[in-house]
Amino acid sequence: MTFKASVLTLYPDMFPGHLGQALAGRALERGDWSLDAVQIRDFALDKHRSVDDTPSGGGAGMVLKPDVLARAIDSIADDGRPRLLMSPRGRPLTQKRVRELAEGEGVVIVCGRFEGIDQRVIEARHLEEVSIGDYILSGGEPAALILLDAVVRILPGVMGNQLSGVHESFEGGLLEHPHYTRPQVFEGREIPAVLTSGNHAVIEAWRHDEALKLTAERRPDLLPKAKAGK
Amino acid sequence: MTFKASVLTLYPDMFPGHLGQALAGRALERGDWSLDAVQIRDFALDKHRSVDDTPSGGGAGMVLKPDVLARAIDSIADDGRPRLLMSPRGRPLTQKRVRELAEGEGVVIVCGRFEGIDQRVIEARHLEEVSIGDYILSGGEPAALILLDAVVRILPGVMGNQLSGVHESFEGGLLEHPHYTRPQVFEGREIPAVLTSGNHAVIEAWRHDEALKLTAERRPDLLPKAKAGK
Repeated sequence: MTFKASVLTLYPDMFPGHLGQALAGRALERGDWSLDAVQIRDFALDKHRSVDDTPSGGGAGMVLKPDVLARAIDSIADDGRPRLLMSPRGRPLTQKRVRELAEGEGVVIVCGRFEGIDQRVIEARHLEEVSIGDYILSGGEPAALILLDAVVRILPGVMGNQLSGVHESFEGGLLEHPHYTRPQVFEGREIPAVLTSGNHAVIEAWRHDEALKLTAERRPDLLPKAKAGK
Repeated sequence: MTFKASVLTLYPDMFPGHLGQALAGRALERGDWSLDAVQIRDFALDKHRSVDDTPSGGGAGMVLKPDVLARAIDSIADDGRPRLLMSPRGRPLTQKRVRELAEGEGVVIVCGRFEGIDQRVIEARHLEEVSIGDYILSGGEPAALILLDAVVRILPGVMGNQLSGVHESFEGGLLEHPHYTRPQVFEGREIPAVLTSGNHAVIEAWRHDEALKLTAERRPDLLPKAKAGK
């Protein structure tokens, strides 16, 4: 099955961007997923093809017009795919939501620009606002590329067996333990002896301990979830 | 002053990516910032140019070798720029950290791939681990593009006066209020009457109220910080 991504944007040339390279790029060529970038401006009807207007109530910046964006959204077949709006006002993206999306048939992603988009089209078209983090980007396009990168890498076949059995941050609710590889001594620093002991039970216990310590130090907010088994 | 970004990566072709377009792209052409992508593989000394090896203690995936990465880092002049490692184990990126970075002279960014990178080079080269969110990406490159997008847009001159006076999410600690623009009626939905009242004090109060309500609903975790005035 092909995972179908449709992106509504004022910058269609930003796609596929880095998703055209490495494993995601090869998966795109193979048809494991598809990407369709729709130019919102094509749905402006006036002769200047204007897509934005000044905010009601005053203030700086411009707001994406609801009618233009609604027509752009309606040009995409409503086949039940979730409609996402990349926005710092959205709920934070989690690996759990990434997995849910990857199990579905695809996504429709609206990329905001300017000050924002008209609230009425968010409501009328049931857009799910998604934030990739607590910082401000130039627009929704970089955020859409991030969401797709996270989803595409876990689509069946994309990473092959490179993923199988790998412990990852957030799986199990903890940050990942530290990694080491050869050489045995690097600038006077040795690989922790436990890792070369050959005792797998002890190695596993050490790794879990390190993951717990790191999470407690950097992300205490994750610990209650980890204890609850998610 | 030019903001200098140096990126260490196994995929230099992913740069500048979307940062070569729109406002960031024009700022790059003007020289408001510079971007230098360094191929880590060029610092592998064996004939196969190998950059990774199996993890000490066993397990799936591969680990980026400390000696190769250290040589790549050392090839970049140590001029005091912060050295970041994009990693889901890092501290979450915030708009505050973005502003601090934008006020500096630049950044050196290491992009991880594979299972991870050897812990000893993180320590020996004082890499600051930074996470853009609680999800897993194909590598550090998409995350580096996000961090640079956030920083570049607030460099002096990049957005011109497009930014001045704009209320943004996280400035003031709250998510942003909803936006509206013409037409007055969209699919039977009207712009809230307060916004066309012409009473600026009432409009500001309404916007603050909406921002508070939205933040309480979606991101109650932000409220204590907002109250503390950050």
